[in-house]
Amino acid sequence: MNNVRSTTLSNGIRAVTKRIDGFESVVVGYWVEAGEVCEDLSNNGISHFLEHMAFKGTTSRTAKEIAEEIESVGGYMNAYTSKEVTAYFAKVLGEDTKVALNILSDILQNPTFLTEELEKERGVVLQELYQVKDTPDDIIFDHFQEICFKDQSMGYPIVGQEEVVAKITADDLREYRSRYYNADNIVFAAAGNLSHDELLDMATENLNAFKTDVSPVHDVQYNYVGGSYSDVREQLEQVHAIIGFDGISNLDADYYTMAIFSSILGGGMSSRLFQEVREKRGLCYSIYSFSSSYKRNGVFGVYSATTADKLAELSDVVAGEIISMSNGISEKEFKITKAQFKASLLMAGENNTSSCEQIVSQIRIFGRTLDNAEVLEKIDAVTIDDVKKLTHRILASKTAVVTVGKCDCSSVLAKLESNGLKTV
Amino acid sequence: MNNVRSTTLSNGIRAVTKRIDGFESVVVGYWVEAGEVCEDLSNNGISHFLEHMAFKGTTSRTAKEIAEEIESVGGYMNAYTSKEVTAYFAKVLGEDTKVALNILSDILQNPTFLTEELEKERGVVLQELYQVKDTPDDIIFDHFQEICFKDQSMGYPIVGQEEVVAKITADDLREYRSRYYNADNIVFAAAGNLSHDELLDMATENLNAFKTDVSPVHDVQYNYVGGSYSDVREQLEQVHAIIGFDGISNLDADYYTMAIFSSILGGGMSSRLFQEVREKRGLCYSIYSFSSSYKRNGVFGVYSATTADKLAELSDVVAGEIISMSNGISEKEFKITKAQFKASLLMAGENNTSSCEQIVSQIRIFGRTLDNAEVLEKIDAVTIDDVKKLTHRILASKTAVVTVGKCDCSSVLAKLESNGLKTV
Repeated sequence: MNNVRSTTLSNGIRAVTKRIDGFESVVVGYWVEAGEVCEDLSNNGISHFLEHMAFKGTTSRTAKEIAEEIESVGGYMNAYTSKEVTAYFAKVLGEDTKVALNILSDILQNPTFLTEELEKERGVVLQELYQVKDTPDDIIFDHFQEICFKDQSMGYPIVGQEEVVAKITADDLREYRSRYYNADNIVFAAAGNLSHDELLDMATENLNAFKTDVSPVHDVQYNYVGGSYSDVREQLEQVHAIIGFDGISNLDADYYTMAIFSSILGGGMSSRLFQEVREKRGLCYSIYSFSSSYKRNGVFGVYSATTADKLAELSDVVAGEIISMSNGISEKEFKITKAQFKASLLMAGENNTSSCEQIVSQIRIFGRTLDNAEVLEKIDAVTIDDVKKLTHRILASKTAVVTVGKCDCSSVLAKLESNGLKTV
Repeated sequence: MNNVRSTTLSNGIRAVTKRIDGFESVVVGYWVEAGEVCEDLSNNGISHFLEHMAFKGTTSRTAKEIAEEIESVGGYMNAYTSKEVTAYFAKVLGEDTKVALNILSDILQNPTFLTEELEKERGVVLQELYQVKDTPDDIIFDHFQEICFKDQSMGYPIVGQEEVVAKITADDLREYRSRYYNADNIVFAAAGNLSHDELLDMATENLNAFKTDVSPVHDVQYNYVGGSYSDVREQLEQVHAIIGFDGISNLDADYYTMAIFSSILGGGMSSRLFQEVREKRGLCYSIYSFSSSYKRNGVFGVYSATTADKLAELSDVVAGEIISMSNGISEKEFKITKAQFKASLLMAGENNTSSCEQIVSQIRIFGRTLDNAEVLEKIDAVTIDDVKKLTHRILASKTAVVTVGKCDCSSVLAKLESNGLKTV
């Protein structure tokens, strides 16, 4: 991984690139450290709306021209908004890097927010909002986040609330953009078929509109609360459920311990939850655990879906499996999980989108890139005792329980309580 | 692409491999030419059930041992059932190819179908069936297939019908397996970090249980019918809709013309539907066209989702855009689409799962592999006039219309009719 280089451009933007030999394509883009967590009740959804509007026209390109220009070289653009980051990136053949970079720099620096385009895009965003709402295993994560971080911006939906999205104006977008889209908050990154020096020259040339003299405003506070919520929908066949707990931040000393904990409990096919809930009892099709880490905090949870008649049994088994992690894990489980981390690190390096996301995260979180050897060292340093201690830490948390489906979450709560877990 | 080699093993199994330089990982697996189309009303779902049961134990491994063995080398296994193919494959680091191949060969050749495991897995499959049913943009494709191929096996759901899945026995699985899982019907394939010769030696050694002396039974007939169906669900915010037509087979002379037609109409961001329906009118978040080709036939369709109040307008615009393709396409559109095909061919070669799927399809359909130059030549040979002629062919078809959502499909049908399209 000595083909990774990072620097800070003259305008203050952090830049990081990874050359992957043998690749014809390159992923290149901008990761802005501003996301839904920066919002409040009066503008919830604005980060995501702004991401949409970036594609709707600049001072020199219409929406159609943006699409045609990138696709005429066989490339494509994408973007996403998360809790703490908004990303804009393109995938093109290496020889077309300049085309991608010109367009990306333009949509990031010179969006026009024309009223007519804004009104049409509001319709698109609202349709996206309804689509999320209609997808049980999508909307349940919004409910979960809300319960974990009740009445805090970290708990609001990324796509926004319907009545707020209905009112966002071009001036709101401009104000939000000037506040967060400054050089200090941007990471420029690329991975694949590239030359580091050429790319930085292009980026420096293209990124002249951003300023560095804006004071950092990104340090939003949030605390895990916990609780429960039922979204009852009689027309569904299944009940989707998440059983969650207070988690850890990106910078927590237990970061890799959490990764191992989550993998053994509910990672792959050999994980405890997959074996016990699906293989041994046939209670579900999907079950997995997840750990979402943010700057200051995080959440841990188990997602599954089953029919109402099996929900209590499933909850009982899930609670039991989480608790049983505090009795320790076997050497065999430990060995399997470490092998999985090692292989997945290598496999991630074979994909330029994953590679790009990886180096951006490292720059954002640690201020530098980590090579595979260093990550593996951190994973190797985790002990079975660390996992045990982390389990106790997780179990000390109040639970966050959400369900979407035919019945409410009362049978889940009852089973958690009978297993001694703390419900709110 | 001269690193692609294909051969037929001594037992009759076709084998194809692609070495990708610079990769540490390899995807390896078996693609069996048997899928849902081989079923009838008495055993619908059996192809998919059999795929599930492959992971539930062999004469020498329990389900847990299968999972642990592949994950202990950091690999993972996957499988899927489609209309005409059932696939079993693994991704591992190159050095662990033998481990993956041993397990895959075992689950394919020596499954036990123990009653106890069968009953538990029936529960899992039923939960999967409910999950599909609860996901609007998933179940709508089952409805669409049913309307396109009314009362024919090509129209049945892959996951099966609840009452049929409830009754499938171990003997049914054995009978189906012995009928379709024979050497003539299997393609063994791998892509990534591999040596062709070593891999074929391993495969020949591992695949001794399959026979070649079974007469081919796979030539199922099916004809496109068309019609309409509404799955009314009052609790949904949106109405999901597919407007479809008779399509083309994998071997049709117009195969690449169809690919270009579909790309210009509803492929990327610069496509007519994306520009007209989403960008200009803000009527939806998702819209795209698709062409599914099978051995004897295929279907073409446009999927979108919007709120009930906008469904008629959306249908009117979609119908208009499809019809307008018969007036011809511009040189610019033609150029963009060809650039997209060229780039996506190169990009697919940078992923070992896509590479594997690509060479398997070529072996299955053409009996040989095609290098990128040959595919590009076929794409280059398509003319604007070919696209115009194909549009007339598509428009001569009766439509297949399905909706899932708040209202029925009557407003869609009315708009298709007012545009002169044929409804059933």
